[in-house]
Amino acid sequence: MKAAVIGLGYWGPNLVRNFLSNGEIKSVICCDNNPARLKLINEKFPAAIITNSYSGILKDKSVDIVVIATPVDTHYQLAKEALQNGKHIWVEKPFTAKSKQAEELIKLADKHDLKIFVDHTFIYNGAVKKIKELTVAGELGDIIYFDSVRVNLGLFQHDINVIWDLAPHDLSIMSYILDAKPIAVSANGIANYSKYENVAHLSVYFDNNTFAHFHVNWTSPVKIRRMIVGGNKKMLVFDDMENSEKIKVYDSGVEITTQEGIYDALVQYRIGDMYSPKVNQTEALNLGVKEFLASIKEDRQPLTNGVEGLKVVKILEASDESIKRKGKLISL
Amino acid sequence: MKAAVIGLGYWGPNLVRNFLSNGEIKSVICCDNNPARLKLINEKFPAAIITNSYSGILKDKSVDIVVIATPVDTHYQLAKEALQNGKHIWVEKPFTAKSKQAEELIKLADKHDLKIFVDHTFIYNGAVKKIKELTVAGELGDIIYFDSVRVNLGLFQHDINVIWDLAPHDLSIMSYILDAKPIAVSANGIANYSKYENVAHLSVYFDNNTFAHFHVNWTSPVKIRRMIVGGNKKMLVFDDMENSEKIKVYDSGVEITTQEGIYDALVQYRIGDMYSPKVNQTEALNLGVKEFLASIKEDRQPLTNGVEGLKVVKILEASDESIKRKGKLISL
Amino acid sequence: MKAAVIGLGYWGPNLVRNFLSNGEIKSVICCDNNPARLKLINEKFPAAIITNSYSGILKDKSVDIVVIATPVDTHYQLAKEALQNGKHIWVEKPFTAKSKQAEELIKLADKHDLKIFVDHTFIYNGAVKKIKELTVAGELGDIIYFDSVRVNLGLFQHDINVIWDLAPHDLSIMSYILDAKPIAVSANGIANYSKYENVAHLSVYFDNNTFAHFHVNWTSPVKIRRMIVGGNKKMLVFDDMENSEKIKVYDSGVEITTQEGIYDALVQYRIGDMYSPKVNQTEALNLGVKEFLASIKEDRQPLTNGVEGLKVVKILEASDESIKRKGKLISL
Amino acid sequence: MKAAVIGLGYWGPNLVRNFLSNGEIKSVICCDNNPARLKLINEKFPAAIITNSYSGILKDKSVDIVVIATPVDTHYQLAKEALQNGKHIWVEKPFTAKSKQAEELIKLADKHDLKIFVDHTFIYNGAVKKIKELTVAGELGDIIYFDSVRVNLGLFQHDINVIWDLAPHDLSIMSYILDAKPIAVSANGIANYSKYENVAHLSVYFDNNTFAHFHVNWTSPVKIRRMIVGGNKKMLVFDDMENSEKIKVYDSGVEITTQEGIYDALVQYRIGDMYSPKVNQTEALNLGVKEFLASIKEDRQPLTNGVEGLKVVKILEASDESIKRKGKLISL
Repeated sequence: MKAAVIGLGYWGPNLVRNFLSNGEIKSVICCDNNPARLKLINEKFPAAIITNSYSGILKDKSVDIVVIATPVDTHYQLAKEALQNGKHIWVEKPFTAKSKQAEELIKLADKHDLKIFVDHTFIYNGAVKKIKELTVAGELGDIIYFDSVRVNLGLFQHDINVIWDLAPHDLSIMSYILDAKPIAVSANGIANYSKYENVAHLSVYFDNNTFAHFHVNWTSPVKIRRMIVGGNKKMLVFDDMENSEKIKVYDSGVEITTQEGIYDALVQYRIGDMYSPKVNQTEALNLGVKEFLASIKEDRQPLTNGVEGLKVVKILEASDESIKRKGKLISL
Repeated sequence: MKAAVIGLGYWGPNLVRNFLSNGEIKSVICCDNNPARLKLINEKFPAAIITNSYSGILKDKSVDIVVIATPVDTHYQLAKEALQNGKHIWVEKPFTAKSKQAEELIKLADKHDLKIFVDHTFIYNGAVKKIKELTVAGELGDIIYFDSVRVNLGLFQHDINVIWDLAPHDLSIMSYILDAKPIAVSANGIANYSKYENVAHLSVYFDNNTFAHFHVNWTSPVKIRRMIVGGNKKMLVFDDMENSEKIKVYDSGVEITTQEGIYDALVQYRIGDMYSPKVNQTEALNLGVKEFLASIKEDRQPLTNGVEGLKVVKILEASDESIKRKGKLISL
Repeated sequence: MKAAVIGLGYWGPNLVRNFLSNGEIKSVICCDNNPARLKLINEKFPAAIITNSYSGILKDKSVDIVVIATPVDTHYQLAKEALQNGKHIWVEKPFTAKSKQAEELIKLADKHDLKIFVDHTFIYNGAVKKIKELTVAGELGDIIYFDSVRVNLGLFQHDINVIWDLAPHDLSIMSYILDAKPIAVSANGIANYSKYENVAHLSVYFDNNTFAHFHVNWTSPVKIRRMIVGGNKKMLVFDDMENSEKIKVYDSGVEITTQEGIYDALVQYRIGDMYSPKVNQTEALNLGVKEFLASIKEDRQPLTNGVEGLKVVKILEASDESIKRKGKLISL
Repeated sequence: MKAAVIGLGYWGPNLVRNFLSNGEIKSVICCDNNPARLKLINEKFPAAIITNSYSGILKDKSVDIVVIATPVDTHYQLAKEALQNGKHIWVEKPFTAKSKQAEELIKLADKHDLKIFVDHTFIYNGAVKKIKELTVAGELGDIIYFDSVRVNLGLFQHDINVIWDLAPHDLSIMSYILDAKPIAVSANGIANYSKYENVAHLSVYFDNNTFAHFHVNWTSPVKIRRMIVGGNKKMLVFDDMENSEKIKVYDSGVEITTQEGIYDALVQYRIGDMYSPKVNQTEALNLGVKEFLASIKEDRQPLTNGVEGLKVVKILEASDESIKRKGKLISL
């Protein structure tokens, strides 16, 4: 198969490298308007073919896959043209700038019997796969809350706020891990440097008694990438900044204790054993490419398909409405 | 001076110990309905006098100070009686269950020229004092956000939710550190085990472009006590779980960089030096007692007086209204 | 029973507190030459009886137990007199300044049918008990090495070097955990501030293919209290600075791998799962006092008896000889 | 200039990548006996020329630089031939298997006016450069001890023990940072899996009152890369496992205090402020290549030249003698 990568910014080179290294891929065309980026790609990946013409790629019958790694607001147009020209598409997260666009693209892909892969990379991360295994196995019991923190001193996007930039990772994990259906969101935050929020908090309510919260921040002096999945049986912490022991499962819960016991409970807050399962360290993006190619060959939906992408976009859309009104509850 | 401690639950013994060890205090009377607690106090502090009669204490002209460490909803009544009987009062946080009660007690104390000390212990903590010093010195520049996390596997209160239980610590620190005036709050959370929320998120908006957020949780498998004070010049992290280096000041900020530079910024997220000032390790409660006694002798308001207590209660009250309506913005 | 504590320095008050709180103990006499220390004890523990006369204690028939918490070089004389006067003895670590003295005291105690308890407190620590359980259960397989680090910015002793001050803790744990017999030692280090080494490294060789190493330092800017027990099946880390998760058991070992595999092994250095068993948090000293009193009542040797104390002293003695000659191997 | 890399094992590809990416280098020839490795290099670096003939490289007049990344015991022969054929040489650490060989190579290079670069990569690491700056500036005062730990679950070398494998990194840093002259060594350790030690401790004595110790281990369940440089003014910790804050400088020292004060000193072990300077994150190997090429163009000795390599080999040689005799002091 032949793939073309559109947009060679921060993430583009990783896409090029992983498509190049996949045995199923004969060649990779790299496309960007910025000559400097094309030059850089050419130096790093002499095997790649470079071009600045997207229309040329669309016309090229030999191209099976178009990988879209451009700014969010261009996803819809580029994706639509690719589908109309009979290409399977890989779209960076978030899938689209509007849920209507996502719905339209899903219909279009179905019509032409093409696949949409949304790059929710974390779904192919060894730690996240392990969390899924554990929850499916009932190890945690019923999940009562999902808490995610993704903050660091990061790059300011110039077209979206910090929720649209960082939360898709965590929202896609949430939607992968939790069975419950999100019904409403409330978002708060602040924009200190531009019209886009650089600090934000997103609460998600579900149709059962589950609650999820997402803290994202571009202006944190420390880098934190931590997720707590609270079950009524056990609780799990996923700390992506840990070199090893990324996942810790705590055999801890709520103690109903005597008056005296209660005072102890306060000091001794960890009740049971903890264990940290080994996690597969294969690069997630590599497995994502495999899954996409497999879905095409087997003519089935990939794990992170358009519908999954749409779910995330719907929440992002609602968060915009809520944060503008300082936490107002917005139903999904 | 003579002090009487009412309520010998989890915190009571710490109060007894610190009043006993203060040179200004001649004797300490300890009062509780629970004989088991009185016995325990008697064993631990043979020097203390024990009783189960609050009325006796009120009548006792030799008692100068009444320390109220009972459940929140009893604070108002006990405090009122103490003031009416000419006693200075020390009240555990949160000051009262309703802001009206706090306002009434403040008036009453003024009328009788008595002092109210609200036990916002953290204001006397060496690390918090250091944060105050640094902010007053302008070390951080303008504060753009205040983020606090206080979660662990803790004791469920049976009369208040996790915000009323844990957030007063952090709200009192916020109000001590920030000059800005809080104007509205939005709260989200969930109650998994009782009618009281065990997980909650509280956003506070200010009259300037500052934003504060408080994450409190009784059902976290890990204990986190971290506060980030984001300034436009430097940023500070206060991690109370650290044995040393509780405070770290990061000479970090937002980089306006070139296209290429931006990609780097993403990987190299820490920009400047960091330093960790030495922190005074004297027990905060010990310094709190000193401050209270000094305020009485010098006939001045203590640092953590009734008005400070009222500020926190107002926010807690608003949070109740907001969390019931899933994040609805409530003006203060 | 009645106990007398001799020496009320840094550790003395902890001994007084734990003997006072033990139900079997009717009263505790506290003895020191320094009036300031007697005063302090009197304030902290009004129930304790204070005196500056050791001879008085020896003559007092009602005293069953003498607790010796004085400088090492005084242990032998005080212990001998106590035994000669029919008292059971509790001696702080290290047991004696010379192994000959320890041997003599052991004989003397046997002759008078009295008990010697050497305060190897860590043997009663919940984490150490758990390590013992795991090793006895064969969880780690055969132990191939034992590595201990105990460094911080600590107090300089004026009569002993850092090995005599800090290593007894770890040597007693080693001797509790390992079945193998130590046969020789090699010690290196440096004395920067006095004639006593403030940095030292002690290697211990055993009669089987096991090896132990102890790193002690009074002049480290960071406090480290970590022990690694390397088994050929699993490996264990005991980090006493951790608030929770003090013990971690790693299902890790040595991989025999292909040429290619080897390169991976270098990057992926953690092979299996890890788990952290819950640890009993009862104060070790409290359990030590219980064990000592039980050994007296049941007329049996306590777990940390004179012979255990002697083992440690023999290694310390050899370390002195070795460190003077910069690592020369000294047989035990 | 034209470079040839001999030996494409674990480290080889990093060398190829860094020589390829250097502007001064026209082309890079890659040589190995193992076709699998040549194939891998060819795939990863299409621009590189591959061959299995070292003699061909030696004959090739256009080759200026020979980079030797083969097993230690082959360094001498390959290096000698390269120098005899007029090539500048880059040799992986440790420089040679015997100090006599190193001395001979140094003479040979001088005779032919060629440069020897020994790949002590860490000398070009941003953190190590910063430590050098701080020590040269007298920030730490006089250095009293140097303590290094480099342990993990690593690859067993089949021709050398863990000291020869891991310690060269730390010995080269020591020799870069310390002015003092090493005069003798004492080494202890154990070989559990082969005839080569997998756990080892190396003590180095200096001509002044400085002491250095190196702990290396291939069989540790946890990965530790920490160095403590103890000065009589300040102390520095370099923790290479930290994502940020790799260097911490502690304004801590030894307190001469009163009897009472001493007891405090024990609990409050950190005395002054700490700060963590920002560290340059450029890849060390990249800077190493730059330095080597500059030394050739400017006809001067590179920073990590043959004499530096020899210093490390001498200590390694002595460590072999000492460890065989369980810590016997060996003069350098």
